[in-house]
Amino acid sequence: LASAGDHLFGYGDPAGLAELRVELASYLNRARHTAATADSIVVTAGTARSLTHLAGVLRASGVEAMAVEEPGFPFHHPILRRAGLQLVPVPVDGEGVDVDALAATGLTAVVVTPAHQYPLGTVMSPQRRSELVAWARSRQGWVFEDDYDSEFRYDRQPLGALHGIAPDRVVYLGTASKTLGAGLRVGWMVVPPQLRGLMSDQLGRDNEVSHLTQAVLARFIADGHLDRHVRRARAAYRSRRDQLLGAVQSAIDSADIRGVAAGLHLTLVLPDRLDEHTIVRYASKAHGLALWGLRLHYVTDRAVDGLVLGYCRTPVDFGDSVARLSTILRHAPTG
Amino acid sequence: LASAGDHLFGYGDPAGLAELRVELASYLNRARHTAATADSIVVTAGTARSLTHLAGVLRASGVEAMAVEEPGFPFHHPILRRAGLQLVPVPVDGEGVDVDALAATGLTAVVVTPAHQYPLGTVMSPQRRSELVAWARSRQGWVFEDDYDSEFRYDRQPLGALHGIAPDRVVYLGTASKTLGAGLRVGWMVVPPQLRGLMSDQLGRDNEVSHLTQAVLARFIADGHLDRHVRRARAAYRSRRDQLLGAVQSAIDSADIRGVAAGLHLTLVLPDRLDEHTIVRYASKAHGLALWGLRLHYVTDRAVDGLVLGYCRTPVDFGDSVARLSTILRHAPTG
Repeated sequence: LASAGDHLFGYGDPAGLAELRVELASYLNRARHTAATADSIVVTAGTARSLTHLAGVLRASGVEAMAVEEPGFPFHHPILRRAGLQLVPVPVDGEGVDVDALAATGLTAVVVTPAHQYPLGTVMSPQRRSELVAWARSRQGWVFEDDYDSEFRYDRQPLGALHGIAPDRVVYLGTASKTLGAGLRVGWMVVPPQLRGLMSDQLGRDNEVSHLTQAVLARFIADGHLDRHVRRARAAYRSRRDQLLGAVQSAIDSADIRGVAAGLHLTLVLPDRLDEHTIVRYASKAHGLALWGLRLHYVTDRAVDGLVLGYCRTPVDFGDSVARLSTILRHAPTG
Repeated sequence: LASAGDHLFGYGDPAGLAELRVELASYLNRARHTAATADSIVVTAGTARSLTHLAGVLRASGVEAMAVEEPGFPFHHPILRRAGLQLVPVPVDGEGVDVDALAATGLTAVVVTPAHQYPLGTVMSPQRRSELVAWARSRQGWVFEDDYDSEFRYDRQPLGALHGIAPDRVVYLGTASKTLGAGLRVGWMVVPPQLRGLMSDQLGRDNEVSHLTQAVLARFIADGHLDRHVRRARAAYRSRRDQLLGAVQSAIDSADIRGVAAGLHLTLVLPDRLDEHTIVRYASKAHGLALWGLRLHYVTDRAVDGLVLGYCRTPVDFGDSVARLSTILRHAPTG
């Protein structure tokens, strides 16, 4: 506060504090290989708000529907629908979103999670990334890249963001919610030049994030604290991932586990003989264990039965809950 | 931070931090005679966001148009329009918004500034408040009460908020932007029971204000700092108001000054022989003085020619700028 300028107390730039946008561009280009400039960045109160603004931009440009990954993050759907967009699900396979299926929809916008598909945990392959960018360029379309937990890639160097190879067609969405805390309510977008006029109309005259918070975060990044914190957090989460993975593999025979390379959750695909709804109901009733299933991430009947196992907020000793899960899988009614 | 609970770092309640809503209800009921409860309060990133959410609520309930005061705050209009509402201007007279004219529109929602009409500075009379509430009850309509600078009433006890006499029909909108600083990006609404379901749908799953900011503000109010700060600020602004008023009255013969009882600005209505556009253009070209006219606050051709003179951010010595204004008014082309 002693070094804060008076400008922190006024209404400020609708896109966010200049000093934070400079630091974010530099951080994202270094850590995520984006092609961001300070001018291309908009600071928001988180990814939900970023999507609200982007949906408004699409609607203002006459777009009425967009594609979403299936399975996908169900909490994003009402945000996009509230802004007046129809959502069309496009399947995800082992390399990421199915670009042929996307092209077949005839739509011009899609939201994807290339760094770590939610909920399957797939890292989008380089080949698929090229196809997606080629699709966007040929359609003059837009890819919203939700890079929510990209800082946590464990077993090799992370792939850079899609934005880095197509800053003209990709809107990059990031957040402090996974690295620093959701309670900060800070996220950011990197917006292609062609959308900036419409985005400016959407934002109106005011930014939505406390200027003090923005100034503190700018300093935090500039002084190298974010890089150090992410490094420490990555090591801590990798260790939790290893423990959870080990516990699941030793307690559950031939477990079909996906999405281990990155992020803050694993996906356990259930064997054919087990029904997800039955398992979830049985776990709650007979064992007091709340499970989070895969099915609610699907809009169509393509659903794969499975469980999402998060390890970001859980205690480090997963032994007990995995043992209970193993018992549930062995004793739940089949069908 | 030492006493902050873990809950500050999670996603939290979409309506805002419980401890802040408790303190705001108590503060508003004490300082503004609202009839708020913690449950009725929604914390937002400021009045622009409050209006965005409210416009969404109206649209979701099938409302397509709403009334606004004329003259009114022009920056609010695009926010309401962006949410899909048509705006119908209703005139303001010396007692506040014209309720007969409002009733004649057949609409069911209006946004008003009863504490200090923007830009005319009128304090809505008790009689007019009763008429407005009777209108809302008879139509099952909604009054959005923008109480933006109500803390600053100088010459007698402030009138309580409209909300206090009709909490079933009035949505109260407040902000920290005028008392603490716009850069905090914190505002609040008090929402009638009947609108809370729709408001909850609008808010979605996330609140938009940093939980740390909310926790600090809750403590700031609980410890009495906000009351003390507002008292000090009121004295400071009253002194600036007196100096500006004195300077205008001594430099400009028979100046028609309105809205002196409250707020952070005066309105100087121009004599018939002077044209506002000519004055504003001449002031800028010949004297390098940027003036803020009344006309841009009107949508129809009912405009009164005048100037809005703010004193919240200007230096305390108004002598020089008022002397220049006086010169401009005497030497500008008439017509």
